[in-house]
Amino acid sequence: MKYQYAERMQHLSSSDVRDLLRATANKDIISIGGGLPAPELFPIEDIKKANEAVLDEMGAAALQYTTTEGFLPLRKWIADRMNRQLGTALGPDNILLTNGSQQALDLAGKVFLNEGDVVLCESPTYLSAISAFKAYGCSFIEAPTDEYGIQVDKLEAILDAAPHVKLIYTIPTFQNPTGITWTKERREGLVKIAKERGILIMEDNPYGELRYDGEEQPTMLSMDHDGGVMYLGTFSKIFCPGYRIGWVAANQEVIEKLVLVKQGADLQCNTFAQMAVYKYVEMFDIDAHVAKIREVYKRRRDLAVRTLEAALPPNVHFTRPEGGLFLWVVLPKDINARHLMPKCMERGVAFVPGGSFFPNGGMENTMRINFSNAQDEKLEKALKIVADVIKESMK
Amino acid sequence: MKYQYAERMQHLSSSDVRDLLRATANKDIISIGGGLPAPELFPIEDIKKANEAVLDEMGAAALQYTTTEGFLPLRKWIADRMNRQLGTALGPDNILLTNGSQQALDLAGKVFLNEGDVVLCESPTYLSAISAFKAYGCSFIEAPTDEYGIQVDKLEAILDAAPHVKLIYTIPTFQNPTGITWTKERREGLVKIAKERGILIMEDNPYGELRYDGEEQPTMLSMDHDGGVMYLGTFSKIFCPGYRIGWVAANQEVIEKLVLVKQGADLQCNTFAQMAVYKYVEMFDIDAHVAKIREVYKRRRDLAVRTLEAALPPNVHFTRPEGGLFLWVVLPKDINARHLMPKCMERGVAFVPGGSFFPNGGMENTMRINFSNAQDEKLEKALKIVADVIKESMK
Repeated sequence: MKYQYAERMQHLSSSDVRDLLRATANKDIISIGGGLPAPELFPIEDIKKANEAVLDEMGAAALQYTTTEGFLPLRKWIADRMNRQLGTALGPDNILLTNGSQQALDLAGKVFLNEGDVVLCESPTYLSAISAFKAYGCSFIEAPTDEYGIQVDKLEAILDAAPHVKLIYTIPTFQNPTGITWTKERREGLVKIAKERGILIMEDNPYGELRYDGEEQPTMLSMDHDGGVMYLGTFSKIFCPGYRIGWVAANQEVIEKLVLVKQGADLQCNTFAQMAVYKYVEMFDIDAHVAKIREVYKRRRDLAVRTLEAALPPNVHFTRPEGGLFLWVVLPKDINARHLMPKCMERGVAFVPGGSFFPNGGMENTMRINFSNAQDEKLEKALKIVADVIKESMK
Repeated sequence: MKYQYAERMQHLSSSDVRDLLRATANKDIISIGGGLPAPELFPIEDIKKANEAVLDEMGAAALQYTTTEGFLPLRKWIADRMNRQLGTALGPDNILLTNGSQQALDLAGKVFLNEGDVVLCESPTYLSAISAFKAYGCSFIEAPTDEYGIQVDKLEAILDAAPHVKLIYTIPTFQNPTGITWTKERREGLVKIAKERGILIMEDNPYGELRYDGEEQPTMLSMDHDGGVMYLGTFSKIFCPGYRIGWVAANQEVIEKLVLVKQGADLQCNTFAQMAVYKYVEMFDIDAHVAKIREVYKRRRDLAVRTLEAALPPNVHFTRPEGGLFLWVVLPKDINARHLMPKCMERGVAFVPGGSFFPNGGMENTMRINFSNAQDEKLEKALKIVADVIKESMK
């Protein structure tokens, strides 16, 4: 049969990261590619106890259908914790549970984006946000971005020239892919401009709790009092990604629209997983667990920076992130990182070429390096191999 | 802030069933509304053992990211079982795991439907398929449907007049909401016509294994040898819905497109749940479990039919399904089932008014009755209350 696909399928191509994951599944390749947490830090024994308690205490309810919004005690716990940590004033009706943050991107695309609408984002930005939004026929403006975030002083002119900007998508803390963190001033500037123009900000914050040094920066959500910021959170990096439990925190009106499209998208998140996450945070100290993650990732961040500083020639630049999972390498203009990929794979290392993180293309001389997944020794080995391949490409 | 929603949001309204679920959560209301399995049949003790084995044997991998396609051993198991049961010739590459069948509807809408495309369906049809597809701006043709399925002899003329029919959506076995089952001849007729015209059939089969009497009918998937049928299956009704594990079985080319949009939609299904389902089917006999479900639901189907036959006046008609979870009540034309809803709720019973199952509206004199969820005594009580409310409305 000859299939007649929707037009949007022409604009979608497979994600480099997902293809990489598939390529590296069950193979002896060190991945510094995907944004995978360190598996040895998953609190398996505690999770076992929490899982058992879920079935003992909630019984059949954990295996049955539930509401689209999600398990109320978990939504309440998330709201309370955010209020404590971020200074927000959220209630459970401001929280929708999603299948990881990724689903929140898709649902938001469906709720807000018409064909021809424009999403303004950092340059570069998270590649699976690009594909989630692209499915709704939008285009992208990559705002000029430096090490402090989007250059807010240049935004007015850009927005004057682009009347269809519907959404500003940003990962202001330990950004994916660059690892950079916006200053408070830039955050305030963006919130102010977006408010004046009635443009919704989507603040994606999967890594916010993973700060290794430097000063805590306030969320844009906490700076807004008018429902102008939709915030995405997730348990993937502070607990485990396998459960696929993320959330949106937003104005109740927005939550209601997201619920409406989530009904059609998959009815609800996994009931058991919602309760298992809740049981875990009830029985154990997730803050202590996050502190443990921070300690290990800080060590690996330091190791990665040290290794690259020693191994890379001076014409290769890279970011020194204060937290998160990634650093960003910029090679000389004439080196295409995609061409280095097979050579690295041959020697047992997978990274993600940076070009895919630019929605409008370009900057193929970049690469994203993850430092959370591989254990120290392997991480060091992998980075040395990457540095070798880079140096060889310069000969 | 004044939010600017996408145009598609004008066409979406909340699902009656989901709203009902929300209304009945934590309340002492007997639900004969949603398509909920009997919770007392969930094999909780076996699930506990399977869950423990998952973390013991697969450890951190069960909590980590995995591929978008899903856990290979489970996809292989599903393909093998379908081949055995349905006479198909599927491999794991023909299977994509989804968050329940509902996600498969959404992903298929995204892959195939352009604004203005037409979905042809039974009249009535599953209400959350309507909302999943509507989000992509399609319209619906409700094909004339009787107790044997879509009246295939009338299809040629309809399709001649409707050049944009992109997809034929059908639930041919124990249909939702009517409970009817298509004859073999109708199935063959539809597969033939769809093939001649190059229109993809989506065969949704969540209830196929729940037959209580009558003769097994072949799936349309097994009648097709050209990739013309996309089949949806799920563990929700034969195991538990809380895990949200369903699947698509289709031509590999279609699976690859679905994978592409699932990447942007939520990256992957819950890793733990995929492995937990697999571990359960490996450790325990799911066929024996399904036999147990069939026994209980058959008894409830019989009870429901008997109770309604005794309690309803002769001008109210209802279906006698050979399997599945639902029967369908047709009231006299002048009675609007939505108006009976509050009266039933007052007396502690929730059903779903039938009007929502017609994508183009109409037939408000109908109601869907679920007989799987409530225990026998409660089911009988609920049906008597519904019958009383119906009779009072006729006075």
